[in-house]
Amino acid sequence: MLLLRRRVRFLLPSSLSSPRAPLAKPLPLPLRHPPRILASAARPLASMAAPAAMSRDAFRAAVTNTLERRLFFVSSFKIYSGVAGLYDYGPPGCAVKANVLAFWRQHFVLEEGMLEVDCPCVTPEVVLKASGHVDKFTDLMVKDEKTGNCYRADHLLKDFCKDKLEKDQTLSPEQAEEYNKILAILDDLSAEQLGAKIKEYGIVAPDTKNPLSDPYPFNLMFQTSIGPSGLSPGYMRPETAQGIFVNFKDLYYYNGNKLPFAAAQIGQAFRNEISPRQGLLRVREFTLAEIEHFVDPEDKSHPKFGDVSDLEFFMFPREDQMAGKSATRLKLGNAVSEGTVNNETLGYFIGRVYLFLTQLGIDKDRLRFRQHLPNEMAHYAADCWDAEIECSYGWIECVGIADRSAYDLRAHSDKSGEKLEAHEKFAEPREVEKLVITPSKKELGLAFKGNQRMVLEALEAMGETEALEMKAALESKGEVEFKVCTLGKDVTIKKNMVSINIEKKKEHQRKFTPSVIEPSFGIGRIIYCLFEHCFYQRPGKAEDEQLNVFGFTPLVAPIKCTVFPLVKLEKFEVVAKKISKALTAAGISHIIDMTGNTIGKRYARTDELGVPLAITVDNTTSVTVRDRDSKDQIRVEVDEVASVVKEVTAGQSTWGDIMWRYPAHTASAAEDEEAEP
Amino acid sequence: MLLLRRRVRFLLPSSLSSPRAPLAKPLPLPLRHPPRILASAARPLASMAAPAAMSRDAFRAAVTNTLERRLFFVSSFKIYSGVAGLYDYGPPGCAVKANVLAFWRQHFVLEEGMLEVDCPCVTPEVVLKASGHVDKFTDLMVKDEKTGNCYRADHLLKDFCKDKLEKDQTLSPEQAEEYNKILAILDDLSAEQLGAKIKEYGIVAPDTKNPLSDPYPFNLMFQTSIGPSGLSPGYMRPETAQGIFVNFKDLYYYNGNKLPFAAAQIGQAFRNEISPRQGLLRVREFTLAEIEHFVDPEDKSHPKFGDVSDLEFFMFPREDQMAGKSATRLKLGNAVSEGTVNNETLGYFIGRVYLFLTQLGIDKDRLRFRQHLPNEMAHYAADCWDAEIECSYGWIECVGIADRSAYDLRAHSDKSGEKLEAHEKFAEPREVEKLVITPSKKELGLAFKGNQRMVLEALEAMGETEALEMKAALESKGEVEFKVCTLGKDVTIKKNMVSINIEKKKEHQRKFTPSVIEPSFGIGRIIYCLFEHCFYQRPGKAEDEQLNVFGFTPLVAPIKCTVFPLVKLEKFEVVAKKISKALTAAGISHIIDMTGNTIGKRYARTDELGVPLAITVDNTTSVTVRDRDSKDQIRVEVDEVASVVKEVTAGQSTWGDIMWRYPAHTASAAEDEEAEP
Repeated sequence: MLLLRRRVRFLLPSSLSSPRAPLAKPLPLPLRHPPRILASAARPLASMAAPAAMSRDAFRAAVTNTLERRLFFVSSFKIYSGVAGLYDYGPPGCAVKANVLAFWRQHFVLEEGMLEVDCPCVTPEVVLKASGHVDKFTDLMVKDEKTGNCYRADHLLKDFCKDKLEKDQTLSPEQAEEYNKILAILDDLSAEQLGAKIKEYGIVAPDTKNPLSDPYPFNLMFQTSIGPSGLSPGYMRPETAQGIFVNFKDLYYYNGNKLPFAAAQIGQAFRNEISPRQGLLRVREFTLAEIEHFVDPEDKSHPKFGDVSDLEFFMFPREDQMAGKSATRLKLGNAVSEGTVNNETLGYFIGRVYLFLTQLGIDKDRLRFRQHLPNEMAHYAADCWDAEIECSYGWIECVGIADRSAYDLRAHSDKSGEKLEAHEKFAEPREVEKLVITPSKKELGLAFKGNQRMVLEALEAMGETEALEMKAALESKGEVEFKVCTLGKDVTIKKNMVSINIEKKKEHQRKFTPSVIEPSFGIGRIIYCLFEHCFYQRPGKAEDEQLNVFGFTPLVAPIKCTVFPLVKLEKFEVVAKKISKALTAAGISHIIDMTGNTIGKRYARTDELGVPLAITVDNTTSVTVRDRDSKDQIRVEVDEVASVVKEVTAGQSTWGDIMWRYPAHTASAAEDEEAEP
Repeated sequence: MLLLRRRVRFLLPSSLSSPRAPLAKPLPLPLRHPPRILASAARPLASMAAPAAMSRDAFRAAVTNTLERRLFFVSSFKIYSGVAGLYDYGPPGCAVKANVLAFWRQHFVLEEGMLEVDCPCVTPEVVLKASGHVDKFTDLMVKDEKTGNCYRADHLLKDFCKDKLEKDQTLSPEQAEEYNKILAILDDLSAEQLGAKIKEYGIVAPDTKNPLSDPYPFNLMFQTSIGPSGLSPGYMRPETAQGIFVNFKDLYYYNGNKLPFAAAQIGQAFRNEISPRQGLLRVREFTLAEIEHFVDPEDKSHPKFGDVSDLEFFMFPREDQMAGKSATRLKLGNAVSEGTVNNETLGYFIGRVYLFLTQLGIDKDRLRFRQHLPNEMAHYAADCWDAEIECSYGWIECVGIADRSAYDLRAHSDKSGEKLEAHEKFAEPREVEKLVITPSKKELGLAFKGNQRMVLEALEAMGETEALEMKAALESKGEVEFKVCTLGKDVTIKKNMVSINIEKKKEHQRKFTPSVIEPSFGIGRIIYCLFEHCFYQRPGKAEDEQLNVFGFTPLVAPIKCTVFPLVKLEKFEVVAKKISKALTAAGISHIIDMTGNTIGKRYARTDELGVPLAITVDNTTSVTVRDRDSKDQIRVEVDEVASVVKEVTAGQSTWGDIMWRYPAHTASAAEDEEAEP
């Protein structure tokens, strides 16, 4: 039976900005993000005094304006007025993405010895039928009855309630309570319930005020047709995981028929949203990075759990959510040993995800791991935690970490007829008790004639409890009523029709369907939150002037370094080109800016791109190197400068480590940053 | 006017294995690929004696068998019987692909300072209408009239002709000549001509022998619908280039409004092939890496051309193809200076592509650059060259390098109304002669009344020649007949209705649509050819036993190194784990094999994966390092071994460089390779 729910199988919950845990209070949130201070910076960053607090909306506008202006991303197909929910990464955004993915590969695939695969996006219907997407991957939609415009039913109801709560001054306490309750249970409402509320509140189409249709499910997969015949429906995959599940058998063999092992995949996924909102957070095409860690359901310990058990960070267990508490800092080892987190392997991945996100530059105080509430989890899931990152849109689910038990492999086993299971060979054969049900074909044939086969199959399919109850009943009463579903009625089974015994058998191996623990990363969401967490402003030269800075770690910075001749002089340009060559040879992405702009303007331009280091050529034998965040400068020999930059940007040293090794350089007034005219 | 032809705009020609140049002789081809010998290997590779020559088919079977068995790739969705033309990369294939793409980024994007972008696969119809794909991206298809099965019309005709030529002993010389001629002109046949030949030869459906429909065009794009309304048709992009063209304006601005600059994109592309053949070479979804280098059409020189001008490799100019000659080794500098290659920028990219492919491990003697014949090129293209790699399927187009002039930007300018152009500011204003057409509204109104606007617009839209002719006619005859298309008729224009003058003007800048030079890489094809070029066999321990080896360069090898404890002893396992940790820290992908298999078996297993170096722990202080191709071994201290491996696999040293620095280790008989049982 499929009880698949969209937000369980799928990374992205249907309503992101609504609090998932209705009673839970959000963490205290700094509306204005403080400047990122490199942990190891040796000196206080006096110049980074925070300006007056900014509203969430103003902060978001400042970030996205800078992102779009500097081509981190733009709306796709802009010259044709764009398409909602589709975005292009421009050069710096594309470089950030490549850096995030490279680090993901290093941190997960390489360090954990995972098996990376790369499967197509085009997927035949049968695969997504088995996974449940064809039937259940839907959102409820309403149509403007006159124009045919489509809206998400839950969005309209949510907007209506929020609007009432925020703007209607005449609201009675009872009404307010009702609207708040609806916001809390929005995700659980059925089509009928949503439709009833929309009717009750008289909600109409927002653009035209026309009446709306009843809500009905719209499948969120992009549909297509494979081959020319039109007879092979296919879809653009809504997640990458299925490509791994269908390959389980080969991957298990590749791993020497041993568990546990993990497979990983990075790739595009597609979701035909009804009406995308929230910029880069809800898009129709996005990059997922998914891990499927296959494990023996009877042993979910992890040999490397000790490496992460001392980590302490914000966790938000379901009990705390339901009790209206806030997320609290827990030690991961305790969370597992006390049973808050279901098992060590799940806990290990939670810890690794924490390290991954914080090493990228996500603020650890705006990151929490929230456990799914009982009503969010599918019946088969053992436990689920979301890494949620706070940004101006609220707490955003960016990584889902779920113990999905054996559900996915079983679904594909059933549909394909291919056994997707593992086996454990016993060192010594084990004696096991086994239930043996032996129906008598002859007696069943005499008693049930044409229905013989149905009765026989139903008897063989009995579970252990049922069979033992029947055995007891037959022994005491000689006959028993037995429901045969395929006949739709009860039949009377007599003692001579079936023998039920517990037999002892020697077994040499155990066969089982592995459990899967699935960390699933929404790369675009992580990147967007990273943009917000790294962004800050500092005062410029002119009065009231605010300069934008992306304080990226060297790891994710799109460009690691700039090279500026201080003034337009051929001898400086020669040195700049020489340094550029050395940087290229060292594999360091950099830009060389020979324009005659003031050095301050050039610094400001590249601070907006988050370039961590700037080399200014003011001399033919030595140059200055400036740190973006502290604006400190040191003087380094020309021949040495590429290796100094390499040291910092490759993460071997921090600015704090190297700055004491070189003489400090005092900036002149001309080097103050100034915004572009 | 669109004269777009599939094989011109698109990387992959419609028939790959047929000779594109009918009269050209293929290069001499070693049917059995010789063992790859690392250029720097210091000692002769005595053990690599080539076995008896193999047929193309047997060679291909040996390669693909190894590739599938070791999970380099598999058919996608195999447990559901798969889908033609869709493949998964398994772990080693995925690693090779990641390495190829990382090198592509280093070699092109980083070294050339290109602007990398990342655009969605889902593309609205308007974009692909402008590019010509909606109307012209088709193959001709025929249907089995009874079953509805679809076939490519040209494939059926080709198969018929080849079959006749190969198997029909009664063929007259005239018939043979006819079939050969058809094979040569196959790509140029229209739907009607193909249909006529299919009828004439009585070709029927290959599976059922049923009659076939007439050929008709089938669009090869996967179609879908964006959003829930069903009113916004979209397609999965058939190439990544359009995402760059539509962003030209932003990218030009990002580059400081300066030309030339290049944008690059790596991503999935989709092609709904009618009946995919040729394994990994013709697939329905694949990774493209494309560069669009925008350049002033009046100056296609390249400042770095000197870096590649001395390269010498096989080129196949169109004159040589048409004269029935073979490809010859040409010096790139000469090919450009003599005009064989249209311009320096095109030549520069040809050189860079040559370096890219050969550094990956493509055999330079099985690589040629073939110029498009006049009938292969679109009317707007200035010059096109394909990097073709020879494999068991013949010469395969893997990279297309085309000077597409201003075609693409103009197409999107026209469709979107957004001007996609560049400008050059003159140092000093230039005096230019300019045609000025000034219609007299008053006179036109009097003469044409309601048609005034149409006549006026037609006059203003005249080209220079036409206008000057009209001026002359008006001056000599006082009036002239003038065709107004929008009216569908001629009107009489009199002298007083329009003044036409050549005026001298000062211009401060020149506006123009840039030309684009487009190197476009079919990553999957390059990888498949690389697999074939790197594969060899060598004799094993047992008689007649052949062991498979992928002789990958360290750059592309999926796993750089293995660690084997010689025998199962705890002290060796401790050392092995220590080395593994050091390798992980150095970012070196490796596998550690603690199985009790003989060391020879373990070597053979990893030779099949193309692992260049193997560390065997036979001692607690020093270990042996074995080179895959020469099988030479050296002895290295435990603490030093990770850095030695790093040195070789990062390309800083070759095996030849390092082996003299360490004592040689003589292999025992037990270390001979043996295949798996």
